[in-house]
Formats: sequence, C-alpha cells, structure tokens
Amino acid sequence: MTTTVAAKPKTEDLTAVMAKIGAAAKAAAVALAKTSTEAKNKALLAAAAAIRARTGDILAANAQDMATAKAQGVSGAMLDRLLLNPERIEGIAKGLEAVAALPDPVGKVTETWTRPNGLVISRVRVPLGVIGIIYESRPNVTADAGALCLKSGNAAILRGGSESALSSRAIHACLEDGLRAAGIPATAIQLIPTQDRQAVGMLLGMSDSVDIIVPRGGKSLIERVQKDSRVPVMAHLDGICHVYVDKAADLEKAVKVTLNAKMRRTGICGAAETLLVDKAVLNTHLKPVLDALAAKGCEIRADDSVRRLYPAATAATEEDWRTEYLDAIISVRAVDGVDGAIDHISRYGSHHTDSIITEDKAAAEKFLGGIDSAIVLHNASTQFADGGEFGFGAEIGISTGKLHARGPVGLEQLTSYKYVVRGDGQTRP
Amino acid sequence: MTTTVAAKPKTEDLTAVMAKIGAAAKAAAVALAKTSTEAKNKALLAAAAAIRARTGDILAANAQDMATAKAQGVSGAMLDRLLLNPERIEGIAKGLEAVAALPDPVGKVTETWTRPNGLVISRVRVPLGVIGIIYESRPNVTADAGALCLKSGNAAILRGGSESALSSRAIHACLEDGLRAAGIPATAIQLIPTQDRQAVGMLLGMSDSVDIIVPRGGKSLIERVQKDSRVPVMAHLDGICHVYVDKAADLEKAVKVTLNAKMRRTGICGAAETLLVDKAVLNTHLKPVLDALAAKGCEIRADDSVRRLYPAATAATEEDWRTEYLDAIISVRAVDGVDGAIDHISRYGSHHTDSIITEDKAAAEKFLGGIDSAIVLHNASTQFADGGEFGFGAEIGISTGKLHARGPVGLEQLTSYKYVVRGDGQTRP
Repeated sequence: MTTTVAAKPKTEDLTAVMAKIGAAAKAAAVALAKTSTEAKNKALLAAAAAIRARTGDILAANAQDMATAKAQGVSGAMLDRLLLNPERIEGIAKGLEAVAALPDPVGKVTETWTRPNGLVISRVRVPLGVIGIIYESRPNVTADAGALCLKSGNAAILRGGSESALSSRAIHACLEDGLRAAGIPATAIQLIPTQDRQAVGMLLGMSDSVDIIVPRGGKSLIERVQKDSRVPVMAHLDGICHVYVDKAADLEKAVKVTLNAKMRRTGICGAAETLLVDKAVLNTHLKPVLDALAAKGCEIRADDSVRRLYPAATAATEEDWRTEYLDAIISVRAVDGVDGAIDHISRYGSHHTDSIITEDKAAAEKFLGGIDSAIVLHNASTQFADGGEFGFGAEIGISTGKLHARGPVGLEQLTSYKYVVRGDGQTRP
Repeated sequence: MTTTVAAKPKTEDLTAVMAKIGAAAKAAAVALAKTSTEAKNKALLAAAAAIRARTGDILAANAQDMATAKAQGVSGAMLDRLLLNPERIEGIAKGLEAVAALPDPVGKVTETWTRPNGLVISRVRVPLGVIGIIYESRPNVTADAGALCLKSGNAAILRGGSESALSSRAIHACLEDGLRAAGIPATAIQLIPTQDRQAVGMLLGMSDSVDIIVPRGGKSLIERVQKDSRVPVMAHLDGICHVYVDKAADLEKAVKVTLNAKMRRTGICGAAETLLVDKAVLNTHLKPVLDALAAKGCEIRADDSVRRLYPAATAATEEDWRTEYLDAIISVRAVDGVDGAIDHISRYGSHHTDSIITEDKAAAEKFLGGIDSAIVLHNASTQFADGGEFGFGAEIGISTGKLHARGPVGLEQLTSYKYVVRGDGQTRP
C-alpha cells in the first residue's frame, strides 16, 4: 500500500494556500486568546486519546515514511528520529497529557502596583498570537509543539520535514480531533499540507499574520530561517558548552560533573564540548578527569600543555574550540584561572551554557557574572540546560538570543503581556 | 560663521567606518556589562554638568542647524522640535540627572527557586548588548537615548536626523566627556559621524554587532526601518487610541477623561483619535462630550447616527477610523455596547492604548480582557500611556509589538536576563 504526498501545487496556488493558512491562524488566535484553560486541556486530553486510538494508523503512515526515507538513502540517527513504534507513540500521548497538567500562563497577573494618582496598574500575560514552527523529520515535534502553542493560547502553523510528512499528518489529525472535541477551531493547529520548499519561504515572509518563527533542528536549518525570515525568529544556535575546572575545584565533583556534562547524552545542545582546566591544578586534576572520560569512550583533543601531561590526547586545532561535536569527543585546554576561562569562553563560546567547578565562592561569582551565556552554573552539569530540569514542565527549545526569551523556552516564554490600568476618572495633568 | 558637516565619504570608506563603530560598540558593551552603578551615574552627572557648561556651544551649533533647516524650507512643528534654547538645554541636563537617579536594572535578581535536586536557579537581569537608535531631528533624543542605554548597561550607536547634525554632535561631545570622567570607554555612546543615508542601511544590516534597533520618529521612518532591518527592531507604530463611553458611564468622567485623552496634547502617541459611544446613551452622553471637545477647538468627524444628534460634526469616512491625526481632530462613532466597541477597535485600532468609561465592572472587565492592546484602561485617560506615568522614570518609546517588550520601554525593558544555577556537584540522571 502506498499513499502519495499531495501533488506539488503551482506557485500561485501555493500563495493562496499559505495566505489562507495565515488568515485562518490569525482568526484562530483571536478565539484562542479567550479560550478557557478547561477547553484547552480538554483538547489536549482528547488528542492524547486519539493518538492512542489511532496508533495503528500512525504506525502505518510511519512505515511508509520509513520505506521512502530508506529508499532515498536516509540512515543512522536521522532514520532513528523518524521511526515511531508503540512505545514512542505512547510517549507522544503522555507528552500531550503532561502539557495539559501544566499551569496555564495566560491571564496570570505578574505584577501590580498603585501610582500616587490612584491608578492601579497590572501586568497580565497574554498569548503572542500566531507561532510558526519549522522542524526536521521528527514526527513527535508535531504533537509537542502543537500542544505547547495551544496551552499558551497561540495558534500554530507547523511545517515538519518532508521525510516525516505522512507520520506528521497522522499525528496532526489526532490534534484536530482533540480541538474539535473541545469546541476550539481546528485551525488553531495547522500543518502545512505540502512539502513544497517554497512554502517555507512564504511562511517566513508572512509578517502580517505570523508573530514569531521557532525553528527546531540543526544549524543549517536555523541559519537559513534566520537569514530569510521577515518574521522575528526565536532560535537556538550552537551549544558550545564549557566546563571549567578551577584550581579550587573539588576533584571528585570535577570528575563527576565533567563526565556527566560530556557523556550523559552527547547529542543534546547542553552537552559539554570543551573542558578548561586551571593551569594551577593540571598536575592533580587533569588526569583523573580525562581518564574518566576516556574510560567511557570519549575522544580527547587537547592543547600542548595538556598533551604533555596526557599524551593519549590528540592535538586540538583552532577549529576544535569552535566546534559543537554532539558526539563523544571533547576539546581540552589549560587556562590561567577564572580570567583565562572567561577569555576563552567569551571568544569561542556560543552563549548557551557554561559551568565552573570550584569550592572558591569568589571565583564562582566572578565566573557566573563574567560569562555572557543564557545559563551559567556552579558545581553542576551543563546537561541541566533543559526546560524540564528548570521546572518549566516542557520546552520548545533553548534560546541563545537575548531578546524576548533567553534559555529554556517553556509556556511562559511563549506569551507576551499587556498592561491593565484601573482608574476612577483620572486625567493626566 | 559656518561649520560644514563632514564631506560624504565613499562607500568603501563608509563600510569601514561603520564596521569600526560596530566593533567598538561590541567591545564597549562587554566593558559596560561589568561597569558599576556608581560609574554609570558619575558619567551621567558629569555629562549633565558638561551640557550646562557648554550651553553656548550647543546653542551656536543649533543656530547653524536652524539656519540650514530654514533655508531648506523646514517649518512648523519640525522646526520647533529642532530648536534648542537655554530652557530646553537645562531640560536635557535635568533629564540626564533623572536617569542617574533611577535604580540600575542590571544585576537585579527577578526570581529565585530551588529544584528538588537542590539546584538553586536565579533569573538575573543583564544588558542586551548594543542598541542602535535611529531618530529624527530632535537633538534632545541624543542625550535621552544615550543616557537610557548607558544606565541599562548597553552600548549605543546613535543616528539622528540630518537637520540636527551639529546640535546632536555638540550634545554628544558632552556625553563623551561624562563617560571619560567616569573611566568608561567613550565608545559606549557613539554618534554616527556622517549624514550619508547609506550609513542607516549599513547599521540595519549589522546583525553581528548590533542586538536591537530602536527607531524613534514618524511612521515612515519606522516602517522603513522595519522593512530593511536584519537586526530585530523594537518599534512603536501608530497610536490609534480609542475612548469608549459605555452606557453605564458616569457622564462627568466621560467628559473629563475624553477631553484629556484627546486635547491635553494632541501630538503624542497616547492621544485619543476615535471616540466610541454606546448607542444606548447617545441621547444623554454624546452632546456634553462633543461640546466640551468643540469648545477646546477640536474638529469632529462622525458617522451618521452621531451627526443626526450633533449636526455640527462633518462626515467621517472609512479612512478616518484608520487615521492617527496627531492633531485637534476626533472621529466619533456610535457602537452597540462593549461588543461593538471591541469589534471596532479590533478592526481599526493599532494595539496601542484604549480606554473604557463605565461604572459597570463587568463591562469594564470584558473590555480590558477583549482588547488586544499594549495598554487598556478603565476610567482613565489614554494619555497615561507613558513610561514616566507608569513609574518607569523614563522611556525610550512605547512598543506596540508583542515580542520582548510591550508598552512603555524603560530601563528594565532594555535588558535581557541570564539564569544563574548554583549547585554542589549535581549531575543529571
């Protein structure tokens, strides 16, 4: 059995299709801003039920996607991300239920103050409006991203990778079922129905109807989106994360935290890529840390002063300091104390997540204040760079930009605010 | 005596000039992020003293700008905005002192929480980095914008209107004096030294060194900046602000607030442009409000049902509902209750500031929740749309966008944040 993806429409047709999607999203956003928490949760729970009920359909769609991808030579990690099985589908359903269980950020009063003239001013969270999500071939993102947008009161326009087209469509149908069951317009979560690449370009130009674009995927996808978008982009670029072992580091913590930061999972953006060691403790701290990494199969690329003490390391090049390996490889450099660490990270880091290991409180505060990254840690693993670990419940990504949201982007970060001012006839002098 | 503005450099020279400005700003931003509150305040107070000491120089520069502008046919409000006199120069100095007196937003911990694993997470305000300000020929903005950027720890690149070139340069020299007196790099506040229009285009493309662009000026300037910028823009577009007089409005408040909202100052973005009156109280509330406006010289353009009761009004066209007059003109329309008011504002408003006059709390809450504007008021004048009136001390503008900052943009809104995580050797399971 084969199902064909919708034939490629002509450009003029596509323009009309995208304009219709934008208008529908904008209208849905107006409705969503007033939708009750109960209705949003009902939609999420009904969607989870639909995902479970239609597991067979989703698996069948995914089998077709997998067959096509294999025929096109897709392999390895990419193929694994595309694969769905009953456990993963149950995980998708559970993810929807988890978002339903999170507090609703919309309508929350975050501050209230009274002015001398008696005006009472409140800051109240409101949705952003319409969020465009562009992602690679991970079918689960269809549900995750749609759910986070819905719960935060935003309309979503989703565009997944072409390899996952049928899987995403099957999952999206369940989300639509959920919306309908709760009396919310099904256009609250739309999936662009064509894989035509021009559709992405059009979406990036829809600044009249789309409020923000969130790209989820590799560096090339994100860079392309940032370059071409006329709509503001909330993106996370590289996670070139550092662990700095200070001269006052507790050796046991240094070993344990570095090992976790690098090797717990090597493919996530919060994985450490570079280890900096204070020259003052090269003789004591370097070998135990590197031995622990090597014992777990980590390749070590180091500068000359490190290699003199640890000859098993290969030579690091300038390029290594700028590389996000996302693999069991670490670059290692000796630095002159906290200042040397700050200098290195300021030059090569990606403003994502960096950690200092030290028992010296002053050194820690200098590092925490001096590193311009979204997340800075003291005596803790960089792999804590995660919305769930922060207590946000779920995240759509980690922003390395400084505007709007920085660090983990959860439900609150998908909102804006308005000022509500209550008076009794006040006029401005 | 005449001074000529620097000769127009060739494009390749200009590219080098702008690249140098960008690099210097980025370096200054790193220094500024660590600069103490005391040093920043010292620079602001020293700059205020320099402004006073050099009043003669500034007036002479302004006289040249004025002469050139008049020769070029500049007149009216634009010429008035360009004019400096001893009182206005004293106002500029006082403005710098007022910013010095404001609390420093940088380093403020806005939230702290502890995770079950013992990690203590804090959200700490940090500067945005480099802010580009593009403004029209109002010399005072040179000082105001420079001061707000400095106090919030951001490096500023200023580009004022060409008519005010010499005045802005004379004021900028005082800011540089202040920075030097406090030991802060003078490049913390740079003024683009050429009036070449290509410099603006280049600034808008400097996404590697500039973090945000804030345009201050009329609609055409802001639209051009938004269209051309590769750097995120924080802009306020039109202020098409509404006052809605509900059927449960107290008549005295309706008269007083509407008059203030429209006529206190007609040229500011928070000035009301459209009055909506509930059909249920046309007979009682319309005439007193319009009489009060007319008595102050306000021109009234109205729909048919209003004109039947108030024949002195001229006929409003569809275009009137979309117009920000910034003048003593008001458009008036009869609507069907709160729902009618929400419909009209949703269709024609600019998401800036809107007010309801009513004694009915339920009607007020419906309006406050249903209007998607940066500021919504109950029984208060739209002219309160101002950072000073909100207690922010000073503002660089009012943002009508929903990303990053919405409403008055004061010092806090010119910052980002970072997460500081303190642990004791925690690793992620």
